[in-house]
Amino acid sequence: MEESMMQKGTEMPKVILYSYHLSSCSWRVRLALMLKGIDYEYKAINILRGQQFSEEFTKRSPFHTVPVLEIDGVTLVDSVAILLYLEERFPDKRPLLPKDLVQRAHIHQVVFLIASNIQPLQNTQILPVIEAKLGKEERLKWAQYSIAKGFSALERILEKTAGKYCFGDMVTLADVVLSPQLANAIRFQLDMAPYPTIQRVGQALNELPEVKASAPANQPDAPNL
Amino acid sequence: MEESMMQKGTEMPKVILYSYHLSSCSWRVRLALMLKGIDYEYKAINILRGQQFSEEFTKRSPFHTVPVLEIDGVTLVDSVAILLYLEERFPDKRPLLPKDLVQRAHIHQVVFLIASNIQPLQNTQILPVIEAKLGKEERLKWAQYSIAKGFSALERILEKTAGKYCFGDMVTLADVVLSPQLANAIRFQLDMAPYPTIQRVGQALNELPEVKASAPANQPDAPNL
Repeated sequence: MEESMMQKGTEMPKVILYSYHLSSCSWRVRLALMLKGIDYEYKAINILRGQQFSEEFTKRSPFHTVPVLEIDGVTLVDSVAILLYLEERFPDKRPLLPKDLVQRAHIHQVVFLIASNIQPLQNTQILPVIEAKLGKEERLKWAQYSIAKGFSALERILEKTAGKYCFGDMVTLADVVLSPQLANAIRFQLDMAPYPTIQRVGQALNELPEVKASAPANQPDAPNL
Repeated sequence: MEESMMQKGTEMPKVILYSYHLSSCSWRVRLALMLKGIDYEYKAINILRGQQFSEEFTKRSPFHTVPVLEIDGVTLVDSVAILLYLEERFPDKRPLLPKDLVQRAHIHQVVFLIASNIQPLQNTQILPVIEAKLGKEERLKWAQYSIAKGFSALERILEKTAGKYCFGDMVTLADVVLSPQLANAIRFQLDMAPYPTIQRVGQALNELPEVKASAPANQPDAPNL
């Protein structure tokens, strides 16, 4: 048995999420928390204004990144580590992974394809470096190339596994990570025509109330338009 | 209970690893298999000669990457998904994650720091693109910058958590992922002086027989020197 779970029992802990509305990694955690029905307090960190480098925030996250989750008396950084923690900590609150180990591995593959092979190549840490070295036009091309390369592999996977969502009709961690990445693809004006399965799953995900509620435009730090 | 485990029982399945000796992601899986005492057949894929794009290999991995693991009648791609599968499938064979959920989350953070924020920025997919756009000298600088940025965060984490290894004196998945990344850092001539804790842990890891046996030079496809 997991010691933390036994120690902490089943009462809901106080949860604080440090987030930036446009951060796709923050979105992953907002979406998982909402799908699992875990209430949380939202604290905005404006990463475009450099608030992630403040002394106070650096104590929380030596990565200088959002999201950061405070829960059970500890501070967790890295969105995927947070997703796995929430899944292990609250296994009965709308599971986002099935119990079968092979199915879990296939879902993990999609999570890491996006989290390790797409997102890091087009995030707010890397794109300014690309723009500084190669110019503004190359920035967009770089982002599009990075996403397209990953989406080509993802499309071939989802052709075989997708139902309504990435894996059959169950919303899983693969969907939790895909939804924000799709929004990035649209923001970077990627031609989605080569990825009909990704598009179809994305449309189904967009209809989920939790996807809408966790979207950047609906966060407390989104600009009033 | 996990269905796969119940179905497959405790007999050791036949395991085939598709690997390239210099691939740090392949090394992660070789090391985990050896630490857990799981025998496997080694099949070499020379990614510098493009064997990952062959029709036969593409059927196995739409990612065109190594490692690929065949086990339990399924094909798994993505090294971290494979590590998590092995851990869930063989929980009693030298566990590489503790049972405590918070400790697991901290170890996952280090795994993903390396697997999502360091390795993808300096691997054999990205460096040729950097060299083509910016030249050979920038290729090395880029690799060094990417590793140094991640190692700065990692050093601050390990200062607090390390014993003999990344987390106390237990060899965990954090060490499994760190060891190959350290070899990359040395290959890219990174100045390791700012990272004394990483260096110390790395030296302890290098003394493990499983680290030596899983190292690139000791693989069947390593050149005879």
